[in-house]
Amino acid sequence: MPQVRIVLVETSHPGNIGSAARAMKTMGFHQLALVAPRQFPHPEATARAAGADDVLEGAKIYATLQEAIADCHLVIGTSARPRKVPWPSLTPRQCAELVKKEGALIKIAIVFGRERCGLTNQELDLCHYWLFIPCNLSFSSLNVAAAVQIVTYELHLASVESPWSVLSDSRLATQAELESFYAHLKQTLEDIGFIHSAKQGPSLMRRLRRLFGRIRLEKKEVDILRGILSCAQNPDRGKNRVQEID
Amino acid sequence: MPQVRIVLVETSHPGNIGSAARAMKTMGFHQLALVAPRQFPHPEATARAAGADDVLEGAKIYATLQEAIADCHLVIGTSARPRKVPWPSLTPRQCAELVKKEGALIKIAIVFGRERCGLTNQELDLCHYWLFIPCNLSFSSLNVAAAVQIVTYELHLASVESPWSVLSDSRLATQAELESFYAHLKQTLEDIGFIHSAKQGPSLMRRLRRLFGRIRLEKKEVDILRGILSCAQNPDRGKNRVQEID
Repeated sequence: MPQVRIVLVETSHPGNIGSAARAMKTMGFHQLALVAPRQFPHPEATARAAGADDVLEGAKIYATLQEAIADCHLVIGTSARPRKVPWPSLTPRQCAELVKKEGALIKIAIVFGRERCGLTNQELDLCHYWLFIPCNLSFSSLNVAAAVQIVTYELHLASVESPWSVLSDSRLATQAELESFYAHLKQTLEDIGFIHSAKQGPSLMRRLRRLFGRIRLEKKEVDILRGILSCAQNPDRGKNRVQEID
Repeated sequence: MPQVRIVLVETSHPGNIGSAARAMKTMGFHQLALVAPRQFPHPEATARAAGADDVLEGAKIYATLQEAIADCHLVIGTSARPRKVPWPSLTPRQCAELVKKEGALIKIAIVFGRERCGLTNQELDLCHYWLFIPCNLSFSSLNVAAAVQIVTYELHLASVESPWSVLSDSRLATQAELESFYAHLKQTLEDIGFIHSAKQGPSLMRRLRRLFGRIRLEKKEVDILRGILSCAQNPDRGKNRVQEID
């Protein structure tokens, strides 16, 4: 993880500091800097941190933004509105790419402004880049902790190399196993009287192939389905069978 | 924008409902459904909505998750932890891609669980996909409104990158139609003796829900499958039936 410091400037509500600490920690970030917070520490901050107490306890408090970012090599300031002077700007995703590229060796600060009015122009002047979070332009009032959540989420995503895949390593059925299943299905549909003319079979089977083909059946699922087909072919035998399905 | 409904299940703290409404609105989403909220409406919800009052006022309240998603064609449930049975899973970004692909014509629900314990296995069984938000695995306790913020942020990003496309004009089955199909399937498996003990049913049905959930069944396909089930339940009747399948 790169050394990223989250800097909150003159936060009014201590609950927002707690929520921001929680948001940071869920994404693996721990360095919090507070510039002239109105109330801190505060029970509401602790309550909303919901277990990110270590982030709150480690938070450093500064009188000015200049002091909070003095040792940083890259400073990115969040802004909700375009300013008069054009400035190098980033989306959260571009910010994450930049941090990923540069973050190994340098100290980085990402700065979030006041609840009501964000960062001043003078504070934004201290930043190398401005960061805009894409949002609904007719209601762009993102909560400060929500903004921290989005930015740290993008940083976290960029830091994990490969996408997080949780789906199974179960083996997919081979084409041959699928063909055996389709043959068994067709025979069963004839046995139970669902297909009762040669003319009708092909278009129905085409529909069912389309349907089951979409699933990408696993081998184990083919086994379950064929077990069901066997029971449908011979209900009495099914009733006496011992089954093992986990 | 696609019709995406954000569903919050048994939210304990009204403040979280307000924060979630604000998060939704910042990203351009307005359909909020609440399943058995502990306290709602509530001044804390209104305070935290911070101007998203219209989202709160339009929120619909349901007694059960089933009712909240009955008319939806695609249901995505958020989950913090991997479950025993692997299930088709999405990251928020993959979720946004899917919604973008399918969202123009269908109703989509994204479901968020309780603050303390998320969604139950039974509730997750109702979902076509599970959504995992990548995070710090040693502190994965995302606030529910923060989770809504991340997911709607990804949906918003996908929507501004390029216009929504249309998947197909075949009508997908609604959740209510799928539930009728699952009930019919379970009854049939009992009738033909494939399920022959109460203990065995739930895990088998979970596997079959996972399997059929992956297909994204169309209404017409549900009708065919239910026709097959009826024949399996009563083979003799099937043999005399005249069928019309194109």
